[in-house]
Amino acid sequence: MSVWMGVDVGGTNIVCGAVNEDGVVLHALKRPTGAREGSAAVLDRIADMVREVAGRLGGDSVPAGVGVGIPGLVDPDAGISRNSTNLEWRDVPVARELERRLGVPVHIDNDVRMYIYGEAAFGAGRGSANVLGLTIGTGIAAAIVQDGRLLYGFKSMAGELGHGPVAGIDVPCGCGLTGCLETVASASGMVREAKRAIAAGRETVLKEWFPGDQLANLAAADLSRAMDAGDALATEILRRAGTLTGRELIPAVHLTSPEVVIIGGGGALAGERLLGPLREALMDGLLPDFRPDLRIKVAERGDDAGVVGSAMQARAKQLQK
Amino acid sequence: MSVWMGVDVGGTNIVCGAVNEDGVVLHALKRPTGAREGSAAVLDRIADMVREVAGRLGGDSVPAGVGVGIPGLVDPDAGISRNSTNLEWRDVPVARELERRLGVPVHIDNDVRMYIYGEAAFGAGRGSANVLGLTIGTGIAAAIVQDGRLLYGFKSMAGELGHGPVAGIDVPCGCGLTGCLETVASASGMVREAKRAIAAGRETVLKEWFPGDQLANLAAADLSRAMDAGDALATEILRRAGTLTGRELIPAVHLTSPEVVIIGGGGALAGERLLGPLREALMDGLLPDFRPDLRIKVAERGDDAGVVGSAMQARAKQLQK
Repeated sequence: MSVWMGVDVGGTNIVCGAVNEDGVVLHALKRPTGAREGSAAVLDRIADMVREVAGRLGGDSVPAGVGVGIPGLVDPDAGISRNSTNLEWRDVPVARELERRLGVPVHIDNDVRMYIYGEAAFGAGRGSANVLGLTIGTGIAAAIVQDGRLLYGFKSMAGELGHGPVAGIDVPCGCGLTGCLETVASASGMVREAKRAIAAGRETVLKEWFPGDQLANLAAADLSRAMDAGDALATEILRRAGTLTGRELIPAVHLTSPEVVIIGGGGALAGERLLGPLREALMDGLLPDFRPDLRIKVAERGDDAGVVGSAMQARAKQLQK
Repeated sequence: MSVWMGVDVGGTNIVCGAVNEDGVVLHALKRPTGAREGSAAVLDRIADMVREVAGRLGGDSVPAGVGVGIPGLVDPDAGISRNSTNLEWRDVPVARELERRLGVPVHIDNDVRMYIYGEAAFGAGRGSANVLGLTIGTGIAAAIVQDGRLLYGFKSMAGELGHGPVAGIDVPCGCGLTGCLETVASASGMVREAKRAIAAGRETVLKEWFPGDQLANLAAADLSRAMDAGDALATEILRRAGTLTGRELIPAVHLTSPEVVIIGGGGALAGERLLGPLREALMDGLLPDFRPDLRIKVAERGDDAGVVGSAMQARAKQLQK
């Protein structure tokens, strides 16, 4: 059985894992990214990690290929990281550089797309050929798998779902538009909404938990805790985020007809607090034919989804050649 | 060069054409459907037309395959027309029956999807691998081509864009939902909106053109004529339809990243009257990265898009096997 390497390059850590054809991680390694040392040092580190993990698999294990997930704008066809704010990379020819170091084919891609692909093909979407995946984190992003293949679209830009004007939202977004779903329904957006309400004098248990300057430490998980404690503001923010996300998913489901919708990322840790209203809003707006079979599931692979997705997409790309 | 047959089965007429690999219609034939005679008679007629068109091509021309576009719910994998109101068909095994009569592989599909595929691959979208097509007719439907392949989704239901609650629309739709784009922005929807406004006492030149009972003859094309004559109601209806359709396209473009958006069907005959506001609303709501390259085009193949799409999809499906 062949082995593929999956590498998830984050702003803080790099995770590298050996993955078999069933999407099982055989061995994995985690190291600080050290982005400040520059791209050449990071690429050396990735190459070292790939060699080390391969070495642990025993004697003659040469990986069939390497997949690398990188934050920001990536050109998978050219193998170039166009612009990564987290890593401070611009036009880094990652695939060529790693192929030179490792002597095996390297596929690079956007990290969120790889995470969702891992979930779609080997996590919550396993067994379904048509999957729509959504991550709720600092931002909101999506990816579509159709007939088992990940969609890229023109310039590999497919999968935006967090941006565009949404009725009922009036918050300016960092992207330049106003009323983007991300501004109120991403993990960061929900936290920002809570801070905004507190600044406007709204009563909430969060004020007791995070008095004064400590409010800066407020995280999305605290909203879940506050909701469980019966806090009205937290309940409202989580419900609204779920409802608005569910509504945004209506056209996405109608257009692509997934069998499974996967909700992942840190925001998904809110579980039913968010997914309840999301499911209700989505189902309410779907054509009757779309309702009976659609499953809405939380991501289940956790941290290794990115490693599995990167490795398995490297494999899929090689098989397509 | 091989030849494929494309058949577009409408409620009124059947069009059958021989199409070469470049999407050129070499010879075509049109006959009344005669749906009232029942499915067996219609299938006999289709087989006769395919043989006749093949015969006209000269001596030994056996088509490599036949593609058939059928209105309503179609299961392309099973080759069965599940439910066609226009033809009064239910669970008709079209592919098997035509293969038995003709002795060549037959692919069946939804007629609108085939029309858009014809436009995407051999019409306004020619040369672009990623296309989103929209038809504005009795209803509104869409289809997505990614990497040159038509998307189907789970149960082949992908491509709905005319349904789902839209902010600012309060009309109940035949589908059971309220506020669907179709109710005000399809060709029929725009006509219905005009009739509704007239019934409510609104002044318009349409009342002069279609006095009393003649209002029943009002068609979408008349709204264009009225707008050109400076009529406020017609202008308002066309603008609103364009704006709302443009807004619905925002998430569709973000999600699938097409290089070209094609607007087809009878409603597209309104041209810039509809497309102007559509383009403005769509571009306004897109992320900056999506704006510079996106082209919004009117369908250009006219009536033969369905024939070309059916024939070429039959070819694509055979090549995938």
